[in-house]
Amino acid sequence: MSEAQKFEQANVHYADQFTKGDLALPPARKVAVVICMDARIDPAKALGLSEGDAHVIRNAGGRASDALRSVIISQRLLGTREIVVVHHTDCGMLTFSDEQLRGIVKKETGHSVDHFAFLPFSDLEGSVKEDVEFLKNSPLVLDVPVSGYVYDVKTGKVKKVA
Amino acid sequence: MSEAQKFEQANVHYADQFTKGDLALPPARKVAVVICMDARIDPAKALGLSEGDAHVIRNAGGRASDALRSVIISQRLLGTREIVVVHHTDCGMLTFSDEQLRGIVKKETGHSVDHFAFLPFSDLEGSVKEDVEFLKNSPLVLDVPVSGYVYDVKTGKVKKVA
Repeated sequence: MSEAQKFEQANVHYADQFTKGDLALPPARKVAVVICMDARIDPAKALGLSEGDAHVIRNAGGRASDALRSVIISQRLLGTREIVVVHHTDCGMLTFSDEQLRGIVKKETGHSVDHFAFLPFSDLEGSVKEDVEFLKNSPLVLDVPVSGYVYDVKTGKVKKVA
Repeated sequence: MSEAQKFEQANVHYADQFTKGDLALPPARKVAVVICMDARIDPAKALGLSEGDAHVIRNAGGRASDALRSVIISQRLLGTREIVVVHHTDCGMLTFSDEQLRGIVKKETGHSVDHFAFLPFSDLEGSVKEDVEFLKNSPLVLDVPVSGYVYDVKTGKVKKVA
């Protein structure tokens, strides 16, 4: 059975007990979270979010520049007024360089991706601070509170670093 | 209290009961989900995901082109071999055009974003099919199963459309 088919099965049970059909489109808590796609992180459980509370933007690393389109839409059209950036320990982004991944993709596909920025980082807290600064300094992002955290995949704890 | 501070409070309780500190970095179920950032969707609950199972990539609309960097990293470095795309009813991306949002940003910030693609759509099922095709046809994406769903925010149900 494909994972998609397992999702369909699990969803039958979710829908059977679903009671949140009347939530508004704009996030109730007016906050957008930018967080890594890492499988070990469940942002709702780790941060105490219920359906309807917050935009959750996830990508490899939880990089802010890659989230800019979504942040603009979140703020300008859907009213969020706070941003929280979360990167995490043991992140895959700490394990490679742009040059290395470009080499892998070129070797495996035959296509050059030398123009592609995969946005890895070598300094975990530094990457959070960099992304918080990116959002604070972007002329396209509203002047709202932006804070940054490191999530520890060994303990489930978040630590504020920006 | 800021939302970030509320996240910190909620996280204390999560970390107190945390038992998943030994999960591996690569997703156990070898699947990446590309799904909208919408506040009303809890992908883990709606699709039956536990910590460690799957990469969850989220952006405005759940657009595949915006997720390409993350999908490449997910496949080439972390071993996922299936992709599931999920868009949803009552999506904010159905409510505007690129021209409209470019106009809003220009008016509110003074900056032109005429080069910016916000990736809205007017046909919900069509957007899912388009994104599934985008991934299937991209030379940078592995030849793996890709399926597409519409999630109904009124019922919590997913429907396969691609």
